[in-house]
Amino acid sequence: MITLYQSPTSIARALQIVLEDVGAEYISHRIDFTKSDQRSPEFLQINPKARVPALVTEQGILTETPAILVYLAQLFPQAGLIPLDDPFAFAKVQEFNAYIASTIHVAHAHRGRGYRWVEASDEAALAAMRNFVPTSVAAAFALVETDMLAGPFVMGDTYTICDPYLFTVAQWLELDGIDPASLPRVAAHRAMMLARPAVQRAIEKSLA
Amino acid sequence: MITLYQSPTSIARALQIVLEDVGAEYISHRIDFTKSDQRSPEFLQINPKARVPALVTEQGILTETPAILVYLAQLFPQAGLIPLDDPFAFAKVQEFNAYIASTIHVAHAHRGRGYRWVEASDEAALAAMRNFVPTSVAAAFALVETDMLAGPFVMGDTYTICDPYLFTVAQWLELDGIDPASLPRVAAHRAMMLARPAVQRAIEKSLA
Repeated sequence: MITLYQSPTSIARALQIVLEDVGAEYISHRIDFTKSDQRSPEFLQINPKARVPALVTEQGILTETPAILVYLAQLFPQAGLIPLDDPFAFAKVQEFNAYIASTIHVAHAHRGRGYRWVEASDEAALAAMRNFVPTSVAAAFALVETDMLAGPFVMGDTYTICDPYLFTVAQWLELDGIDPASLPRVAAHRAMMLARPAVQRAIEKSLA
Repeated sequence: MITLYQSPTSIARALQIVLEDVGAEYISHRIDFTKSDQRSPEFLQINPKARVPALVTEQGILTETPAILVYLAQLFPQAGLIPLDDPFAFAKVQEFNAYIASTIHVAHAHRGRGYRWVEASDEAALAAMRNFVPTSVAAAFALVETDMLAGPFVMGDTYTICDPYLFTVAQWLELDGIDPASLPRVAAHRAMMLARPAVQRAIEKSLA
């Protein structure tokens, strides 16, 4: 049995969607950030980084969203969520996911997690970061809009692990001060994803 | 033929080491950041993100270091640089690499690339970021030191794509204000890597 440690609206949502996509049996364990559950001794045993997601498998614990996305795609190969026999096509999926992790998600994190990169008491620097998020996140999404999102799915006609990952970060657009209408292709992808039953199930279960 | 667009001491070094590890035939194309080569129209055609690495293959162009590391490991399976038949072990390699990309490399980038996350004219915020790098990078490496680096190689007895990646970011420790003696296991790994002929060849070719 697999257990996903997640928090609703966090990046762990991408994994919960994939678990629903493949029809996996799994336990959804909600971590409540308002109660600092992620810093509890119990959770730090699971993930010393004090973050979600963490995936507890029979072989051990995995963290880091791009790694777990590929793990699930490999564990459920019949779902066809990553091209397994074509290293270049596999790498294109990974390239997209790495951009989300290291550019989009990192830009977004400067809104609420600036203390990772400046003294937590430096209110001016934290505000400078927060105020720049609409600019940096918009620039990061602009490249998705113009160059990276083939349409209708990220990789074109085939649904892959890139799609729930993009959907998850695109849910943060309004929070980051960006009008989705400025990114019509990203917005259309988000609406298409939201209509999928697996996405609805993932959202519902994440709130339980 | 493969062409690696790289800059010496940049993160592209990890890929150049792997190319030497596997004995690939490739062209090393140096991008000179002091001349803003990365913003030339020619290079922006290759990588609109204006960064290295970029890998030009016969199938197309790849960017993002964690994606290219796995691509090379899959393209040269005889080198055994990632476990190809064990999704969990594969994911542990990817988990480590994702941590380097999204945590260590990002923390480091706040020293010289703070303009990605605040207004470029905000000298106080840029300085606040720069001044915090010794703290944030040290904290990120502390987890590698205590939890993640199995030894002698990252994954234990087997050399993988994690090793050149860790080596490359560990070369920045002094620049980031960190005494390598405070991270004895990371420092020992770095010294071991530096002594490898493939690493020496990669460094030499990157400077050509």
